Amino acid sequence: MVALPPDFDVNETLLSRIRIVMVHTTHPGNIGSAARAMKTMGLSRLYLVRPEHFPHADATALASGAADLLDKAVVVDSLDEALQGVGWVVGTSARLRHIPWPRLDARQAALQVVTECAGHHLDVAILFGREDRGLTNEELQRCHVHLEIPTNPDYSVLNVAAAMQVVCYEIRMAWLAANTRPDGDAVQMLLPRVEWDEPLVSQDLMQQFYQHMEQVFRAVGFLDVEHPGPMLVRMQRLFQRTRLDRLEYNLFRGFFKDVLKMTNRNAPHQSSQQRNPR
Amino acid sequence: MVALPPDFDVNETLLSRIRIVMVHTTHPGNIGSAARAMKTMGLSRLYLVRPEHFPHADATALASGAADLLDKAVVVDSLDEALQGVGWVVGTSARLRHIPWPRLDARQAALQVVTECAGHHLDVAILFGREDRGLTNEELQRCHVHLEIPTNPDYSVLNVAAAMQVVCYEIRMAWLAANTRPDGDAVQMLLPRVEWDEPLVSQDLMQQFYQHMEQVFRAVGFLDVEHPGPMLVRMQRLFQRTRLDRLEYNLFRGFFKDVLKMTNRNAPHQSSQQRNPR
Repeated sequence: MVALPPDFDVNETLLSRIRIVMVHTTHPGNIGSAARAMKTMGLSRLYLVRPEHFPHADATALASGAADLLDKAVVVDSLDEALQGVGWVVGTSARLRHIPWPRLDARQAALQVVTECAGHHLDVAILFGREDRGLTNEELQRCHVHLEIPTNPDYSVLNVAAAMQVVCYEIRMAWLAANTRPDGDAVQMLLPRVEWDEPLVSQDLMQQFYQHMEQVFRAVGFLDVEHPGPMLVRMQRLFQRTRLDRLEYNLFRGFFKDVLKMTNRNAPHQSSQQRNPR
Repeated sequence: MVALPPDFDVNETLLSRIRIVMVHTTHPGNIGSAARAMKTMGLSRLYLVRPEHFPHADATALASGAADLLDKAVVVDSLDEALQGVGWVVGTSARLRHIPWPRLDARQAALQVVTECAGHHLDVAILFGREDRGLTNEELQRCHVHLEIPTNPDYSVLNVAAAMQVVCYEIRMAWLAANTRPDGDAVQMLLPRVEWDEPLVSQDLMQQFYQHMEQVFRAVGFLDVEHPGPMLVRMQRLFQRTRLDRLEYNLFRGFFKDVLKMTNRNAPHQSSQQRNPR
């Protein structure tokens, strides 16, 4: 059971805090099917990161009675823009990447989505990738968890509209459980109640954090300039699963500044001098 | 939890006892999408009662890698024929009929389907009706229960392929629960599955980690020497909830050493010189 504040109007608010983000979708028909899948389950906020063709007659045709979601869809140039103001990011992925990331099945992820929306003031985003190859490693690394729909190992290729339908359905099921059983049952014990003293920071701030951290790593000569990627990805995974609150974030940023001040005073690494924390 | 007979080979038998029956389907593309939805979830037995057009290129195209289900599909002239040898019948229906019938949501129905297959030797059939008006009253009256997918009351029109995907998905989820956790409970299923590539570090190593971190904070002048406590506690809370793996731990320790090397070279804080990382 999701613990909701007593004055929380779950009907009005919760589902509208969920963004469905389609990244580089090729076929406009899939955007239309996605809108229909969303609306049948009560979701309404569609973000499109550089869709190949949009608006498009195929999208409108397949949206059927959900064409209003297409009219309201937010079209952006980058994932960064789609994640402005978002606190928790779920990436849909059928594939295991070489660095394991926290994974949930669709049901677990949907429960967590509803919990996040109930417990924090920030939006939640669920990312759906390209038809042919899904989300890139970089995009998956922006996520807190990866969502996997259990499928037949001999034939696991759900298309994006089918995956969208399952995920939106599970969100509705989780929301109905939170909504219709306010006094709770066994589910209540399974969802951690979030009682924190500081608000969590949004993902756009975390991007600044990662840049600052990389700068510090370079300045002290810690980063392997030949192979910076794996180590930075490891650090990103660590902080994504941790989720910094505002005070922790400010502490780290202050620490990074102090290290850079120190290295600039000393400056054995010329390259690091060129860069400024902000 | 579904109770299975001890000698029941759930892998081989159960899903193959489930028939998906499409009644008077108009658009062959929907038959193809249905085959794909079925196969992604491990179902294989498709029955078609007087389809408008079948076989058809649209069906094959939308089936994608599930075209083998179309080849094996059983095309019959009447619902009676499709239900030969069937012990339990589920009718999908978005509409309430004037005579109330036992109704289950998709999740409850899927659990019941798996239970029926496990407990009896007869097949189970799930009926999907016409695109425009679903199943007739006569067809619905052939069913033991009616299955309803919870939808947004303002827009409840799932198309047949989307409904098929949700129902097949729920059957797979129920089957997985029966299959993989015969002794299991709900709690286990809701815990995120973490398959990690590195072992977590022990708490005694973490104590060394915190000492090292404090030393670094002092060395760069970050720590408030008047009130060091709260900040260190915050950092400790952060890393305790994160639980570092060995690689992450080693990365941080390496970073701390590099910072200390740098500050020792520069050494504006005399006090920090006295201390050594280990």
